[in-house]
Amino acid sequence: MARQSLQLELAERPTGAIVPGRTFRQRRVPAPTEADLREGELLLECLYVSFDPAMRGWLDDRRSYVPPVRIGEVMRAATIARVLASRSARARPGDIVTALMGIREVGIVSEDKVEPAPPGFARAGAGARVTDLLGVFGLTGMTAYFGMLRIGEPKPGETVVVSAAAGATGSVAAQIAKIAGARVVGIAGSDEKCRWLTEELGLDVALNYKDPDFKAKFKKATPNFIDVFFDNVGGEQLDMALGRANAFARFVMCGGISQYNAENKSGPKNFNSVISQRIKMQGFIVFDFAKEYPAAREQIGRWLAEGKLKRRETIIKGGVAASEEAFKQLFEGGNIGKLLVEVKNPDEVARL
Amino acid sequence: MARQSLQLELAERPTGAIVPGRTFRQRRVPAPTEADLREGELLLECLYVSFDPAMRGWLDDRRSYVPPVRIGEVMRAATIARVLASRSARARPGDIVTALMGIREVGIVSEDKVEPAPPGFARAGAGARVTDLLGVFGLTGMTAYFGMLRIGEPKPGETVVVSAAAGATGSVAAQIAKIAGARVVGIAGSDEKCRWLTEELGLDVALNYKDPDFKAKFKKATPNFIDVFFDNVGGEQLDMALGRANAFARFVMCGGISQYNAENKSGPKNFNSVISQRIKMQGFIVFDFAKEYPAAREQIGRWLAEGKLKRRETIIKGGVAASEEAFKQLFEGGNIGKLLVEVKNPDEVARL
Repeated sequence: MARQSLQLELAERPTGAIVPGRTFRQRRVPAPTEADLREGELLLECLYVSFDPAMRGWLDDRRSYVPPVRIGEVMRAATIARVLASRSARARPGDIVTALMGIREVGIVSEDKVEPAPPGFARAGAGARVTDLLGVFGLTGMTAYFGMLRIGEPKPGETVVVSAAAGATGSVAAQIAKIAGARVVGIAGSDEKCRWLTEELGLDVALNYKDPDFKAKFKKATPNFIDVFFDNVGGEQLDMALGRANAFARFVMCGGISQYNAENKSGPKNFNSVISQRIKMQGFIVFDFAKEYPAAREQIGRWLAEGKLKRRETIIKGGVAASEEAFKQLFEGGNIGKLLVEVKNPDEVARL
Repeated sequence: MARQSLQLELAERPTGAIVPGRTFRQRRVPAPTEADLREGELLLECLYVSFDPAMRGWLDDRRSYVPPVRIGEVMRAATIARVLASRSARARPGDIVTALMGIREVGIVSEDKVEPAPPGFARAGAGARVTDLLGVFGLTGMTAYFGMLRIGEPKPGETVVVSAAAGATGSVAAQIAKIAGARVVGIAGSDEKCRWLTEELGLDVALNYKDPDFKAKFKKATPNFIDVFFDNVGGEQLDMALGRANAFARFVMCGGISQYNAENKSGPKNFNSVISQRIKMQGFIVFDFAKEYPAAREQIGRWLAEGKLKRRETIIKGGVAASEEAFKQLFEGGNIGKLLVEVKNPDEVARL
């Protein structure tokens, strides 16, 4: 029997949160083969799928930086994959690449959606893991890097606050702010995450937003107010940060996970601070910095090798079938660091 | 009997709108005299008081770009005044100055709050009026100038939308965008205002936000989306602009008059656009550009002389006693262009 490939398709647009068994449909299809390849395409086998909050936005049928995933289409996702066959100069069979191949076991992807492992990755030495290709070397790391350094621009001694600081992007952004010499306050959703932020990553303060005294502690943790707010959450935390913003603060608008599933979106109430404190709130999409990824990856590789940058992963086993569980964890804050679903056994990957 | 001076004092902080007869108290006090002057001070007689939406913010007891007006203190306001006596090199008796003297007929003001008429004003020629010192040459004009050119940075052919476009600042900002070569859409609150914007000021489109079809018309008026939104209003109009923002749009956060009197502030619901369209929303306070006022006034003087910049005033007679009526008109949108209260007879001013 021909090889089968399990894939996750969008069945119905959610109005709020992703509904298990309803938003997506799992379907087993005959896997494409080398014979199906056209010039400029690659046949890929998925090893890991990246789960990121931004994926929720791709399900809404509205004008955005990328078109929405169509009903019936394979759910868009960044992956680490192994090349099974190639009609492209970009990679050869056996190569490990990152690819926007969507949530499926085997697929044909055009070369513009495929990227070989960057040189910075190899140079990071023994410490680098294949999953870093989606983490610190992937869009996650690039988002943290350009968001913090280009929009946040933290200066030594300034106060930087990062929301969802134990998440994939937040944890890297927070460490980059530390490297830049700032005093860094992280906000996360559990005491375990907070301990990781201060004890392992070296943040100055970490606050659990579920703590009943969170507001008072937030104020106490920002005695000189906030110069840079790197926002992954939106909603109430953004509001609090606006209330504690210093004059000329930079708000890096990276994500708003608290609002992604909200049927009635709510914006920041302390919005007048934007004027009175002359705040710059700037949204960005990492793709806008694509030309500068190589240089950023070099730098990230150096920081990794020097031990200045640490990262952690939450890896869910179970392949494509575990996707709904992954989305659940993602939006409930179940992960620490980068959230991945393993599609192919890691031992097998290690031997590659 | 010694000369008396009527003044408006803050009696009670409003939680929402200014309450006539309650928020402020009018009080007649003995006017200070030359004998009361200390070194570096001037004795001023008020001619015109400027009424601006930002004044509402000065009544709230919260951290802002200036300290709040204290209870019992004379209400802060920019004025045009005549110097009665001076112990400062800044101006001589008889000079017409602008001064942050507050809402009162006669007062002593320290020289750092007094500014002589700028050279650009004199050079604007016969067309310049004394009231322009608070309008196009005053903080109003400076706010429009720096907000539009430094934060908005409109480019030829871009779409610029200005809210409260028939207001003092909006009307100048909109014209500066036209001068910069942009396609300009103004939003205002009456058909009369809209006619003024298109027929007199040359805006491309003017929309009455009270029109039942406003939303549809707004969409139709921005077929290429919005590159610059100069916001004086906040609330729903800001939300609509976010929904129509182009990628990399600049949102000039100048004011939010729709929210100033709101007891429960509400922020923009379409906030996610900030990220997906990479919007830069930037607040500013005109004082930050103080060093550059002279150059800006030169330019404004040239535009006035060339007929490229037009302005209008709504002048309320009745002196200090008319202040509450002025606030009422201001927040109900009763004025077209700059709103002033005349404290001293204009004929008398003209003879100076």
